[in-house]
Amino acid sequence: MRSASFQQLEAFIERCLTAVGFPENDAGIVAALISDADLNGSDGHGIFRLPQYIKRIQNGGINIQPNIHLAEDRGAMALVDGDNAMGHLVMKYATELAMQRADDHGVAWVGVRHSNHAGPAALYAKMPLKKDMVGIYVAVGSANHLPPWGGTEMLLSTNPIAVAIPTNEEPPIVLDMATTVAAYGKVKTAAQRGEQMPEGWMIDKLGNPLTDPSRAGEGFLLPIGGPKGYGLSLVFGLLAGTLNGAAFGKDVVDFNADSTSFTNTGQFIVALSVSAFTDPDTFKNNIDAAIRSMRGSPTLPGFDSVRVPGERSFGIRRQREKCGIPIPDSLYDALNDLASSLDTTFLFES
Amino acid sequence: MRSASFQQLEAFIERCLTAVGFPENDAGIVAALISDADLNGSDGHGIFRLPQYIKRIQNGGINIQPNIHLAEDRGAMALVDGDNAMGHLVMKYATELAMQRADDHGVAWVGVRHSNHAGPAALYAKMPLKKDMVGIYVAVGSANHLPPWGGTEMLLSTNPIAVAIPTNEEPPIVLDMATTVAAYGKVKTAAQRGEQMPEGWMIDKLGNPLTDPSRAGEGFLLPIGGPKGYGLSLVFGLLAGTLNGAAFGKDVVDFNADSTSFTNTGQFIVALSVSAFTDPDTFKNNIDAAIRSMRGSPTLPGFDSVRVPGERSFGIRRQREKCGIPIPDSLYDALNDLASSLDTTFLFES
Repeated sequence: MRSASFQQLEAFIERCLTAVGFPENDAGIVAALISDADLNGSDGHGIFRLPQYIKRIQNGGINIQPNIHLAEDRGAMALVDGDNAMGHLVMKYATELAMQRADDHGVAWVGVRHSNHAGPAALYAKMPLKKDMVGIYVAVGSANHLPPWGGTEMLLSTNPIAVAIPTNEEPPIVLDMATTVAAYGKVKTAAQRGEQMPEGWMIDKLGNPLTDPSRAGEGFLLPIGGPKGYGLSLVFGLLAGTLNGAAFGKDVVDFNADSTSFTNTGQFIVALSVSAFTDPDTFKNNIDAAIRSMRGSPTLPGFDSVRVPGERSFGIRRQREKCGIPIPDSLYDALNDLASSLDTTFLFES
Repeated sequence: MRSASFQQLEAFIERCLTAVGFPENDAGIVAALISDADLNGSDGHGIFRLPQYIKRIQNGGINIQPNIHLAEDRGAMALVDGDNAMGHLVMKYATELAMQRADDHGVAWVGVRHSNHAGPAALYAKMPLKKDMVGIYVAVGSANHLPPWGGTEMLLSTNPIAVAIPTNEEPPIVLDMATTVAAYGKVKTAAQRGEQMPEGWMIDKLGNPLTDPSRAGEGFLLPIGGPKGYGLSLVFGLLAGTLNGAAFGKDVVDFNADSTSFTNTGQFIVALSVSAFTDPDTFKNNIDAAIRSMRGSPTLPGFDSVRVPGERSFGIRRQREKCGIPIPDSLYDALNDLASSLDTTFLFES
């Protein structure tokens, strides 16, 4: 399989975005964030999405000259209006604002409306780490795949939640999870590979297990812990969507199927300054110790080791920094088709 | 079955607390909160716990003359030191502070250390509702019943999460959930009733399903969504515990088994002022509409209706306000034994 360096991905994405009219500075910001997603192993939320983003930009579904601005501002709390910009730009703006505000107030909660799909949740939860802050990010997912518990109408998204906690010597703790047993991307991957899904991922409209991913359209994802995962998806969807004046429920536009309608995606980011609570070094040592105590637990039969959220992604990042980011043939072809259509140079050219 | 009014429970709890030396004002506050838990149907976290609380107070495990005070204060963020008071007093103080601060800053995050078991999570998440605020409450549970995913050492608690969202005409949304498939209280209830547990609640140390609740000591609870529930329990435990300088992991004292050791329980409450984001009436109407859209979904076979978190508890509250709070014989006997030992009058006397 081919592999590309971070810089190669970044330069390619920047070329494609400028080819469709993106201002150079914004193209650079988005390209770096998308490439970072790939470096972390979030393959389903990285450059894989570029053709879809470009299509939406070409169809006028994203504003490439946005005026991202504050709609409300109370110091520790702010509401950002993304003016239908690329989600990456809106969320970078919102997260940097939250970090500044948390410096002054100990905590900051920044809500976002009129945003768009912004890539993997971990990308934004991790940003505050470099300032010894905890990051908490929640988004209304860009398509509904989940009915309320006991129902059959897909009114909810997988609404991802990410929490990042700084460490000293250990990899940071980075939880990045959908509120469903399986993210919808996993269903798509199983379909592409012609594999069956395990029971528990999806059910059909009669409540029977659905294990054939090619029939995914006939059923829906199951929430974690049944009514609990439904509850998490509901309350976080209302806080990331409705509270911010963003889409929720029936109003959510399927980003994958529709490349023109204004999505009004909602997100929020919380930054929490560790130094407001305690000495950051002491705290980070305590988190290191907590990680080691988890890892030190005896294991169940069938498990080699106990892991901590973020450990797998951290390992992938180290590996890819050395050996590059794998580019499967199908992705390589899709990216070169995109480059041809935009009349720009291919992935490994410059 | 006997049933008691809110006022009867409240007066009884107040008598018992003053009998063991509680100042009258504090006894009244705790009695009202415990009775409120019973009114809401949180039977496992209400007056059922009184004998355990009293035992701990008698053994010096709780400070009845506490100096609850701010350890850190940054305006929108504060850290409360509970001085080993009853958790109810500490959390009432912290939640009222969070509501005041959210009035000024739009959001407030108040962490708590040196606290104790404070009853059901929903009690505190719901307090901000009356000011048109969202409440989010997380606690480090008062005993470890959960190993890290793939491990066998019980290093984690069920760490409850509660989120409350205000409404206009509909019952408020109140999610109150453990990060395990079943709360430990449900296992105890099954054991008392001589019932088997369904597969999926617990496993034994070899990873096999454990369905006999009398063998609960040989196994552990399962987290919701496997590694996801573990991740939620871990990150929320670190934010409610470690970040506040409170107990986490190996340091958690089993409140049920040990009635003397200082627990250093950690909790946090977030209050979010809806008026900082948007017009509260518009918001609450939108939440009403979201609730109705969930409830309007067609149902799966086997389900009569779709419910929203908090609906069941709201119905129980209405019922108990009219008809009283049921007092099973075993509870009645335990409370009268307690009254005898404290030389105070019985539940239905005054």
